[in-house]
Amino acid sequence: MTLPKALGFDVFGTVVDWRTSIARESAGFLAAVGLGARDPAAFADAWRAQYIAAMIGMRKSGREFVPLDVLHREMLEATLRDWGADPAALDEALLADWNRAWHRLDPWPDAVEGLTRLKARFPVVTLSNGNVALLLNMARRAGLPWDAILGAEVSGFYKPDRRAYLRTAELLAIAPGELCLVAAHHGDLAGARACGLQCAYIDRPDEYGGAAAPDARHEQAWEWTAASFTELADLLGC
Amino acid sequence: MTLPKALGFDVFGTVVDWRTSIARESAGFLAAVGLGARDPAAFADAWRAQYIAAMIGMRKSGREFVPLDVLHREMLEATLRDWGADPAALDEALLADWNRAWHRLDPWPDAVEGLTRLKARFPVVTLSNGNVALLLNMARRAGLPWDAILGAEVSGFYKPDRRAYLRTAELLAIAPGELCLVAAHHGDLAGARACGLQCAYIDRPDEYGGAAAPDARHEQAWEWTAASFTELADLLGC
Repeated sequence: MTLPKALGFDVFGTVVDWRTSIARESAGFLAAVGLGARDPAAFADAWRAQYIAAMIGMRKSGREFVPLDVLHREMLEATLRDWGADPAALDEALLADWNRAWHRLDPWPDAVEGLTRLKARFPVVTLSNGNVALLLNMARRAGLPWDAILGAEVSGFYKPDRRAYLRTAELLAIAPGELCLVAAHHGDLAGARACGLQCAYIDRPDEYGGAAAPDARHEQAWEWTAASFTELADLLGC
Repeated sequence: MTLPKALGFDVFGTVVDWRTSIARESAGFLAAVGLGARDPAAFADAWRAQYIAAMIGMRKSGREFVPLDVLHREMLEATLRDWGADPAALDEALLADWNRAWHRLDPWPDAVEGLTRLKARFPVVTLSNGNVALLLNMARRAGLPWDAILGAEVSGFYKPDRRAYLRTAELLAIAPGELCLVAAHHGDLAGARACGLQCAYIDRPDEYGGAAAPDARHEQAWEWTAASFTELADLLGC
Protein backbone atom coordinates (compact mmCIF):
# COMPACT_ATOMS: atom_id res chain seq x y z
CA MET A 1 0.00 0.00 0.00
CA THR A 2 1.44 3.38 -1.00
CA LEU A 3 1.18 5.88 1.81
CA PRO A 4 -0.58 9.17 1.03
CA LYS A 5 1.25 12.49 1.10
CA ALA A 6 -1.51 14.27 3.01
CA LEU A 7 -4.68 13.48 4.95
CA GLY A 8 -7.91 15.39 4.37
CA PHE A 9 -10.56 14.99 7.07
CA ASP A 10 -14.28 15.05 6.95
CA VAL A 11 -15.24 16.84 10.17
CA PHE A 12 -18.94 16.51 11.18
CA GLY A 13 -19.28 13.02 12.62
CA THR A 14 -15.71 12.04 11.82
CA VAL A 15 -13.73 14.46 14.03
CA VAL A 16 -16.53 15.87 16.19
CA ASP A 17 -19.66 14.43 17.79
CA TRP A 18 -22.22 16.84 16.34
CA ARG A 19 -25.27 15.06 17.81
CA THR A 20 -24.29 15.20 21.48
CA SER A 21 -22.97 18.74 21.14
CA ILE A 22 -25.98 20.13 19.27
CA ALA A 23 -28.35 18.42 21.69
CA ARG A 24 -26.49 19.89 24.68
CA GLU A 25 -26.50 23.38 23.16
CA SER A 26 -30.12 23.13 21.99
CA ALA A 27 -31.47 22.16 25.40
CA GLY A 28 -31.06 25.70 26.68
CA PHE A 29 -32.25 27.35 23.50
CA LEU A 30 -35.36 25.15 23.32
CA ALA A 31 -36.23 26.15 26.87
CA ALA A 32 -35.72 29.81 25.95
CA VAL A 33 -38.24 29.57 23.10
CA GLY A 34 -40.88 27.63 25.04
CA LEU A 35 -39.96 24.16 23.78
CA GLY A 36 -38.17 23.01 26.93
CA ALA A 37 -40.33 19.91 27.25
CA ARG A 38 -39.10 18.52 23.93
CA ASP A 39 -36.13 16.15 23.43
CA PRO A 40 -33.03 18.12 22.44
CA ALA A 41 -31.41 15.06 20.82
CA ALA A 42 -34.45 14.73 18.58
CA PHE A 43 -34.04 18.41 17.71
CA ALA A 44 -30.38 17.80 16.80
CA ASP A 45 -31.45 14.90 14.59
CA ALA A 46 -34.18 16.98 12.95
CA TRP A 47 -31.80 19.89 12.28
CA ARG A 48 -29.10 17.64 10.83
CA ALA A 49 -31.63 15.58 8.88
CA GLN A 50 -32.10 18.52 6.52
CA TYR A 51 -28.41 18.54 5.64
CA ILE A 52 -28.50 16.02 2.80
CA ALA A 53 -31.49 17.77 1.25
CA ALA A 54 -29.70 21.11 1.56
CA MET A 55 -26.64 19.73 -0.24
CA ILE A 56 -28.77 18.25 -3.01
CA GLY A 57 -30.66 21.52 -3.22
CA MET A 58 -27.43 23.45 -3.70
CA ARG A 59 -26.36 21.14 -6.53
CA LYS A 60 -29.68 20.93 -8.35
CA SER A 61 -30.83 24.52 -8.02
CA GLY A 62 -27.71 26.13 -9.42
CA ARG A 63 -27.78 28.47 -6.41
CA GLU A 64 -24.56 30.41 -5.98
CA PHE A 65 -22.32 28.97 -3.28
CA VAL A 66 -23.16 30.14 0.24
CA PRO A 67 -21.25 29.14 3.39
CA LEU A 68 -22.59 26.33 5.52
CA ASP A 69 -23.39 28.84 8.28
CA VAL A 70 -26.06 30.24 5.95
CA LEU A 71 -27.51 26.81 5.21
CA HIS A 72 -27.43 25.85 8.89
CA ARG A 73 -29.47 28.95 9.66
CA GLU A 74 -32.04 28.12 7.00
CA MET A 75 -32.20 24.56 8.33
CA LEU A 76 -32.59 25.84 11.90
CA GLU A 77 -35.51 28.07 10.93
CA ALA A 78 -37.18 25.26 9.01
CA THR A 79 -36.75 22.90 11.96
CA LEU A 80 -38.23 25.46 14.34
CA ARG A 81 -41.24 25.87 12.06
CA ASP A 82 -41.64 22.07 11.97
CA TRP A 83 -41.60 22.10 15.76
CA GLY A 84 -44.24 24.79 15.98
CA ALA A 85 -42.13 27.88 16.65
CA ASP A 86 -42.06 30.92 14.36
CA PRO A 87 -38.41 31.98 13.91
CA ALA A 88 -39.50 35.45 12.77
CA ALA A 89 -40.88 36.04 16.27
CA LEU A 90 -37.65 35.02 18.01
CA ASP A 91 -34.72 37.17 19.11
CA GLU A 92 -32.13 37.53 16.36
CA ALA A 93 -29.18 37.29 18.79
CA LEU A 94 -30.57 34.04 20.18
CA LEU A 95 -30.97 32.53 16.72
CA ALA A 96 -27.46 33.63 15.70
CA ASP A 97 -25.97 32.13 18.84
CA TRP A 98 -27.95 28.90 18.40
CA ASN A 99 -26.71 28.63 14.83
CA ARG A 100 -23.14 29.08 16.05
CA ALA A 101 -23.53 25.92 18.14
CA TRP A 102 -21.98 24.24 15.08
CA HIS A 103 -18.78 26.18 15.85
CA ARG A 104 -18.72 24.64 19.34
CA LEU A 105 -18.84 20.91 18.66
CA ASP A 106 -16.80 18.61 20.87
CA PRO A 107 -14.29 16.20 19.32
CA TRP A 108 -14.53 12.45 19.75
CA PRO A 109 -12.26 11.38 22.61
CA ASP A 110 -9.48 10.08 20.33
CA ALA A 111 -9.50 12.99 17.87
CA VAL A 112 -6.95 15.43 19.28
CA GLU A 113 -4.44 12.76 20.27
CA GLY A 114 -4.85 10.95 16.96
CA LEU A 115 -4.58 14.11 14.85
CA THR A 116 -1.48 15.18 16.75
CA ARG A 117 0.18 11.83 16.07
CA LEU A 118 -0.85 11.81 12.41
CA LYS A 119 0.35 15.41 11.96
CA ALA A 120 3.88 14.41 12.95
CA ARG A 121 4.12 12.47 9.68
CA PHE A 122 1.42 13.84 7.35
CA PRO A 123 -0.08 17.25 6.68
CA VAL A 124 -3.56 17.15 8.22
CA VAL A 125 -6.18 19.41 6.63
CA THR A 126 -9.93 19.67 6.74
CA LEU A 127 -11.80 18.38 3.68
CA SER A 128 -15.17 19.37 5.06
CA ASN A 129 -18.34 21.07 3.95
CA GLY A 130 -17.99 23.39 6.95
CA ASN A 131 -17.04 26.97 6.18
CA VAL A 132 -13.67 28.40 7.15
CA ALA A 133 -14.86 30.49 10.10
CA LEU A 134 -16.86 27.59 11.53
CA LEU A 135 -13.94 25.17 11.26
CA LEU A 136 -11.43 27.72 12.57
CA ASN A 137 -13.55 28.55 15.62
CA MET A 138 -14.16 24.86 16.25
CA ALA A 139 -10.46 24.08 15.99
CA ARG A 140 -9.41 26.84 18.37
CA ARG A 141 -12.00 25.76 20.96
CA ALA A 142 -11.31 22.02 20.67
CA GLY A 143 -7.56 22.12 20.05
CA LEU A 144 -7.67 20.52 16.60
CA PRO A 145 -4.18 21.03 15.12
CA TRP A 146 -5.01 21.52 11.42
CA ASP A 147 -2.23 22.47 9.03
CA ALA A 148 -4.80 24.17 6.79
CA ILE A 149 -8.56 24.57 6.52
CA LEU A 150 -9.62 23.40 3.09
CA GLY A 151 -12.74 21.88 1.58
CA ALA A 152 -16.02 23.23 0.32
CA GLU A 153 -15.76 26.96 0.90
CA VAL A 154 -12.30 27.46 -0.58
CA SER A 155 -13.26 25.14 -3.45
CA GLY A 156 -16.61 26.79 -4.07
CA PHE A 157 -18.39 23.42 -4.21
CA TYR A 158 -19.87 21.08 -1.62
CA LYS A 159 -18.90 17.44 -1.36
CA PRO A 160 -19.66 15.10 -3.03
CA ASP A 161 -19.11 17.43 -6.00
CA ARG A 162 -15.85 16.23 -7.58
CA ARG A 163 -14.42 19.74 -7.52
CA ALA A 164 -14.39 19.80 -3.70
CA TYR A 165 -12.07 16.78 -3.57
CA LEU A 166 -9.94 17.66 -6.58
CA ARG A 167 -9.45 21.32 -5.66
CA THR A 168 -8.23 20.24 -2.22
CA ALA A 169 -5.53 18.07 -3.80
CA GLU A 170 -4.67 20.89 -6.21
CA LEU A 171 -4.25 23.40 -3.36
CA LEU A 172 -1.92 20.93 -1.66
CA ALA A 173 0.01 20.58 -4.95
CA ILE A 174 -0.34 16.81 -4.92
CA ALA A 175 -2.06 14.31 -7.20
CA PRO A 176 -5.54 13.11 -6.18
CA GLY A 177 -4.08 9.65 -5.50
CA GLU A 178 -1.62 11.17 -3.03
CA LEU A 179 -4.45 12.54 -0.87
CA CYS A 180 -6.38 10.33 1.54
CA LEU A 181 -9.86 11.28 2.72
CA VAL A 182 -10.50 10.26 6.31
CA ALA A 183 -14.23 9.99 6.95
CA ALA A 184 -16.86 8.12 8.92
CA HIS A 185 -19.22 8.12 5.93
CA HIS A 186 -19.20 5.61 3.11
CA GLY A 187 -20.98 8.02 0.77
CA ASP A 188 -18.30 10.68 1.21
CA LEU A 189 -15.54 8.10 0.72
CA ALA A 190 -17.25 6.82 -2.43
CA GLY A 191 -17.20 10.35 -3.81
CA ALA A 192 -13.51 10.68 -3.00
CA ARG A 193 -12.63 7.31 -4.52
CA ALA A 194 -14.42 8.25 -7.73
CA CYS A 195 -11.93 11.14 -7.96
CA GLY A 196 -8.94 8.89 -7.37
CA LEU A 197 -8.32 9.71 -3.71
CA GLN A 198 -7.24 7.12 -1.17
CA CYS A 199 -9.79 6.42 1.54
CA ALA A 200 -9.66 5.76 5.27
CA TYR A 201 -12.89 4.78 7.00
CA ILE A 202 -13.31 5.57 10.69
CA ASP A 203 -16.12 3.75 12.42
CA ARG A 204 -18.20 6.10 14.57
CA PRO A 205 -21.10 3.90 15.72
CA ASP A 206 -22.45 6.59 18.06
CA GLU A 207 -22.74 9.33 15.43
CA TYR A 208 -26.49 8.86 15.02
CA GLY A 209 -27.17 7.92 18.63
CA GLY A 210 -27.23 4.24 17.76
CA ALA A 211 -29.45 4.60 14.68
CA ALA A 212 -28.21 3.24 11.36
CA ALA A 213 -26.04 5.40 9.10
CA PRO A 214 -27.98 6.67 6.08
CA ASP A 215 -25.24 5.79 3.59
CA ALA A 216 -24.44 2.18 4.52
CA ARG A 217 -25.17 1.08 0.95
CA HIS A 218 -21.98 2.83 -0.23
CA GLU A 219 -19.74 0.60 1.89
CA GLN A 220 -16.69 -0.72 0.02
CA ALA A 221 -13.31 -2.16 0.89
CA TRP A 222 -11.40 1.01 1.74
CA GLU A 223 -7.62 1.33 1.83
CA TRP A 224 -7.73 1.67 5.61
CA THR A 225 -10.39 1.01 8.24
CA ALA A 226 -10.00 1.97 11.88
CA ALA A 227 -12.11 2.47 14.99
CA SER A 228 -10.36 5.70 15.97
CA PHE A 229 -7.78 8.26 14.85
CA THR A 230 -5.24 6.69 17.19
CA GLU A 231 -5.79 3.32 15.53
CA LEU A 232 -5.40 5.00 12.13
CA ALA A 233 -2.12 6.48 13.39
CA ASP A 234 -1.00 2.95 14.28
CA LEU A 235 -1.95 1.70 10.80
CA LEU A 236 -0.06 4.53 9.09
CA GLY A 237 3.05 4.06 11.20
CA CYS A 238 2.75 7.30 13.14
CA MET B 1 -8.12 51.66 19.88
CA THR B 2 -10.53 48.82 19.08
CA LEU B 3 -8.76 45.49 19.07
CA PRO B 4 -9.11 43.39 15.92
CA LYS B 5 -10.90 40.04 15.92
CA ALA B 6 -8.22 38.31 13.83
CA LEU B 7 -4.68 38.89 12.60
CA GLY B 8 -3.71 38.24 8.97
CA PHE B 9 0.02 38.03 8.28
CA ASP B 10 2.07 38.90 5.31
CA VAL B 11 4.73 36.18 5.22
CA PHE B 12 7.72 36.89 2.93
CA GLY B 13 9.88 39.38 4.82
CA THR B 14 7.40 39.74 7.69
CA VAL B 15 7.42 36.22 9.15
CA VAL B 16 10.40 34.71 7.33
CA ASP B 17 13.79 35.99 6.22
CA TRP B 18 13.58 35.13 2.53
CA ARG B 19 16.90 36.75 1.59
CA THR B 20 19.19 34.82 3.94
CA SER B 21 17.32 31.57 3.29
CA ILE B 22 17.28 31.88 -0.51
CA ALA B 23 20.95 32.86 -0.53
CA ARG B 24 21.87 29.85 1.62
CA GLU B 25 19.86 27.49 -0.60
CA SER B 26 21.10 29.05 -3.83
CA ALA B 27 24.78 28.74 -2.93
CA GLY B 28 24.71 25.01 -3.60
CA PHE B 29 22.53 25.24 -6.67
CA LEU B 30 24.71 27.96 -8.21
CA ALA B 31 27.74 25.75 -7.74
CA ALA B 32 25.88 22.84 -9.35
CA VAL B 33 25.17 24.89 -12.48
CA GLY B 34 28.66 26.34 -12.85
CA LEU B 35 27.97 29.69 -11.18
CA GLY B 36 29.66 28.90 -7.88
CA ALA B 37 31.87 31.98 -8.07
CA ARG B 38 28.89 34.34 -7.97
CA ASP B 39 27.34 35.92 -4.86
CA PRO B 40 24.31 33.91 -3.71
CA ALA B 41 22.82 36.88 -1.85
CA ALA B 42 22.91 38.87 -5.09
CA PHE B 43 21.14 35.94 -6.75
CA ALA B 44 18.46 36.01 -4.06
CA ASP B 45 18.01 39.74 -4.61
CA ALA B 46 17.82 39.30 -8.38
CA TRP B 47 15.26 36.50 -8.09
CA ARG B 48 13.08 38.44 -5.66
CA ALA B 49 13.50 41.69 -7.62
CA GLN B 50 11.25 40.25 -10.32
CA TYR B 51 8.42 39.75 -7.84
CA ILE B 52 6.84 43.20 -8.11
CA ALA B 53 6.96 43.06 -11.89
CA ALA B 54 5.38 39.60 -11.80
CA MET B 55 2.53 40.87 -9.61
CA ILE B 56 1.95 43.85 -11.88
CA GLY B 57 2.10 41.53 -14.87
CA MET B 58 -0.59 39.32 -13.39
CA ARG B 59 -2.88 42.30 -12.83
CA LYS B 60 -2.33 44.05 -16.14
CA SER B 61 -2.24 41.06 -18.47
CA GLY B 62 -5.52 39.54 -17.35
CA ARG B 63 -3.68 36.23 -17.07
CA GLU B 64 -5.66 33.59 -15.21
CA PHE B 65 -4.52 33.16 -11.61
CA VAL B 66 -1.56 30.81 -11.21
CA PRO B 67 0.02 29.85 -7.86
CA LEU B 68 3.13 31.69 -6.73
CA ASP B 69 5.15 28.48 -7.21
CA VAL B 70 4.56 28.91 -10.95
CA LEU B 71 5.61 32.55 -10.92
CA HIS B 72 8.67 31.77 -8.78
CA ARG B 73 9.73 29.20 -11.39
CA GLU B 74 9.34 31.68 -14.23
CA MET B 75 11.30 34.24 -12.20
CA LEU B 76 14.03 31.66 -11.48
CA GLU B 77 14.44 30.83 -15.14
CA ALA B 78 14.56 34.51 -16.09
CA THR B 79 17.17 35.16 -13.41
CA LEU B 80 19.28 32.26 -14.61
CA ARG B 81 19.16 33.60 -18.17
CA ASP B 82 20.20 37.04 -16.88
CA TRP B 83 23.13 35.35 -15.15
CA GLY B 84 24.20 33.53 -18.29
CA ALA B 85 22.76 30.04 -17.67
CA ASP B 86 20.24 28.39 -19.97
CA PRO B 87 17.53 26.82 -17.79
CA ALA B 88 16.44 24.55 -20.65
CA ALA B 89 19.83 22.85 -20.43
CA LEU B 90 19.56 22.21 -16.68
CA ASP B 91 18.23 19.19 -14.85
CA GLU B 92 14.50 19.45 -14.18
CA ALA B 93 14.74 17.92 -10.70
CA LEU B 94 17.40 20.47 -9.76
CA LEU B 95 15.27 23.38 -10.96
CA ALA B 96 12.19 22.05 -9.15
CA ASP B 97 14.13 21.64 -5.92
CA TRP B 98 15.69 25.09 -6.26
CA ASN B 99 12.24 26.58 -6.75
CA ARG B 100 11.02 24.84 -3.63
CA ALA B 101 13.62 26.76 -1.63
CA TRP B 102 10.73 29.20 -1.07
CA HIS B 103 9.03 26.42 0.93
CA ARG B 104 12.07 26.22 3.23
CA LEU B 105 12.48 29.79 4.44
CA ASP B 106 13.56 30.35 8.03
CA PRO B 107 11.45 32.52 10.34
CA TRP B 108 12.81 35.66 11.97
CA PRO B 109 14.00 34.82 15.51
CA ASP B 110 10.89 36.29 17.21
CA ALA B 111 8.31 34.83 14.82
CA VAL B 112 7.36 31.50 16.39
CA GLU B 113 7.31 32.80 19.96
CA GLY B 114 5.38 35.90 18.94
CA LEU B 115 2.82 34.02 16.83
CA THR B 116 2.28 31.53 19.64
CA ARG B 117 1.56 34.35 22.09
CA LEU B 118 -0.68 36.20 19.64
CA LYS B 119 -2.57 32.99 18.83
CA ALA B 120 -3.62 32.62 22.44
CA ARG B 121 -5.86 35.66 22.00
CA PHE B 122 -6.44 36.11 18.26
CA PRO B 123 -6.88 33.78 15.32
CA VAL B 124 -3.65 34.02 13.32
CA VAL B 125 -3.90 33.36 9.59
CA THR B 126 -1.70 33.96 6.59
CA LEU B 127 -2.71 36.84 4.33
CA SER B 128 0.09 36.19 1.89
CA ASN B 129 0.66 35.92 -1.83
CA GLY B 130 2.27 32.53 -1.23
CA ASN B 131 0.28 29.54 -2.38
CA VAL B 132 -1.26 27.08 0.07
CA ALA B 133 1.25 24.26 -0.46
CA LEU B 134 4.20 26.62 -0.11
CA LEU B 135 2.87 28.17 3.10
CA LEU B 136 1.83 24.79 4.53
CA ASN B 137 5.25 23.24 3.88
CA MET B 138 6.97 26.32 5.31
CA ALA B 139 4.79 26.25 8.42
CA ARG B 140 5.40 22.56 9.10
CA ARG B 141 9.18 22.98 8.71
CA ALA B 142 9.43 26.20 10.74
CA GLY B 143 6.75 25.48 13.35
CA LEU B 144 4.49 28.41 12.41
CA PRO B 145 1.18 27.78 14.25
CA TRP B 146 -1.34 29.17 11.72
CA ASP B 147 -5.03 28.73 12.41
CA ALA B 148 -5.69 28.83 8.67
CA ILE B 149 -3.82 29.47 5.44
CA LEU B 150 -5.61 32.23 3.58
CA GLY B 151 -4.62 34.94 1.13
CA ALA B 152 -4.03 35.11 -2.59
CA GLU B 153 -4.58 31.54 -3.75
CA VAL B 154 -7.86 30.93 -1.93
CA SER B 155 -9.01 34.43 -2.96
CA GLY B 156 -7.93 34.03 -6.57
CA PHE B 157 -6.22 37.45 -6.55
CA TYR B 158 -2.80 38.71 -5.54
CA LYS B 159 -2.29 41.54 -3.07
CA PRO B 160 -2.62 44.46 -3.39
CA ASP B 161 -5.81 43.60 -5.30
CA ARG B 162 -8.64 44.56 -2.94
CA ARG B 163 -10.25 41.16 -3.33
CA ALA B 164 -7.30 39.44 -1.62
CA TYR B 165 -7.84 41.46 1.57
CA LEU B 166 -11.63 41.50 1.49
CA ARG B 167 -12.05 37.81 0.70
CA THR B 168 -9.81 36.96 3.67
CA ALA B 169 -12.10 38.91 6.00
CA GLU B 170 -15.14 37.31 4.37
CA LEU B 171 -13.76 33.78 4.88
CA LEU B 172 -13.19 34.65 8.54
CA ALA B 173 -16.80 35.92 8.73
CA ILE B 174 -15.69 39.28 10.11
CA ALA B 175 -15.90 42.84 8.82
CA PRO B 176 -12.79 44.26 7.08
CA GLY B 177 -12.29 46.63 10.03
CA GLU B 178 -12.14 43.65 12.40
CA LEU B 179 -9.14 42.19 10.56
CA CYS B 180 -5.62 43.52 11.10
CA LEU B 181 -2.92 42.99 8.49
CA VAL B 182 0.50 42.47 10.05
CA ALA B 183 3.23 43.30 7.54
CA ALA B 184 6.73 44.69 7.19
CA HIS B 185 5.77 46.52 4.00
CA HIS B 186 4.14 49.94 3.84
CA GLY B 187 2.77 49.27 0.36
CA ASP B 188 0.94 46.14 1.50
CA LEU B 189 -0.44 47.95 4.55
CA ALA B 190 -1.60 50.84 2.37
CA GLY B 191 -3.54 48.35 0.25
CA ALA B 192 -5.11 46.85 3.35
CA ARG B 193 -6.02 50.24 4.81
CA ALA B 194 -7.72 51.23 1.56
CA CYS B 195 -10.02 48.23 2.14
CA GLY B 196 -10.76 49.25 5.73
CA LEU B 197 -8.45 46.79 7.51
CA GLN B 198 -6.49 47.69 10.62
CA CYS B 199 -2.73 47.72 10.13
CA ALA B 200 0.26 46.63 12.23
CA TYR B 201 3.70 47.48 10.89
CA ILE B 202 6.65 45.29 11.87
CA ASP B 203 10.05 46.79 11.24
CA ARG B 204 12.38 44.30 9.56
CA PRO B 205 15.48 46.38 8.77
CA ASP B 206 17.45 43.35 7.59
CA GLU B 207 14.94 42.17 5.00
CA TYR B 208 16.90 43.63 2.08
CA GLY B 209 20.33 43.04 3.57
CA GLY B 210 20.54 46.63 4.73
CA ALA B 211 19.35 48.18 1.46
CA ALA B 212 16.34 50.53 1.53
CA ALA B 213 12.83 49.11 1.27
CA PRO B 214 11.28 49.76 -2.14
CA ASP B 215 7.95 50.98 -0.73
CA ALA B 216 9.07 53.53 1.88
CA ARG B 217 6.96 56.20 0.17
CA HIS B 218 3.78 54.45 1.37
CA GLU B 219 4.67 54.96 5.05
CA GLN B 220 1.76 56.20 7.16
CA ALA B 221 0.81 56.28 10.83
CA TRP B 222 -0.38 52.70 11.32
CA GLU B 223 -2.57 51.49 14.18
CA TRP B 224 0.38 49.59 15.63
CA THR B 225 4.11 49.65 15.04
CA ALA B 226 6.51 47.13 16.55
CA ALA B 227 10.03 45.84 16.07
CA SER B 228 9.04 42.19 16.47
CA PHE B 229 6.07 39.85 16.87
CA THR B 230 6.79 39.61 20.59
CA GLU B 231 6.60 43.39 20.88
CA LEU B 232 3.31 43.31 18.94
CA ALA B 233 2.06 40.70 21.41
CA ASP B 234 2.93 43.12 24.22
CA LEU B 235 1.06 45.95 22.46
CA LEU B 236 -2.04 43.78 21.94
CA GLY B 237 -2.07 42.55 25.53
CA CYS B 238 -1.13 38.94 24.73
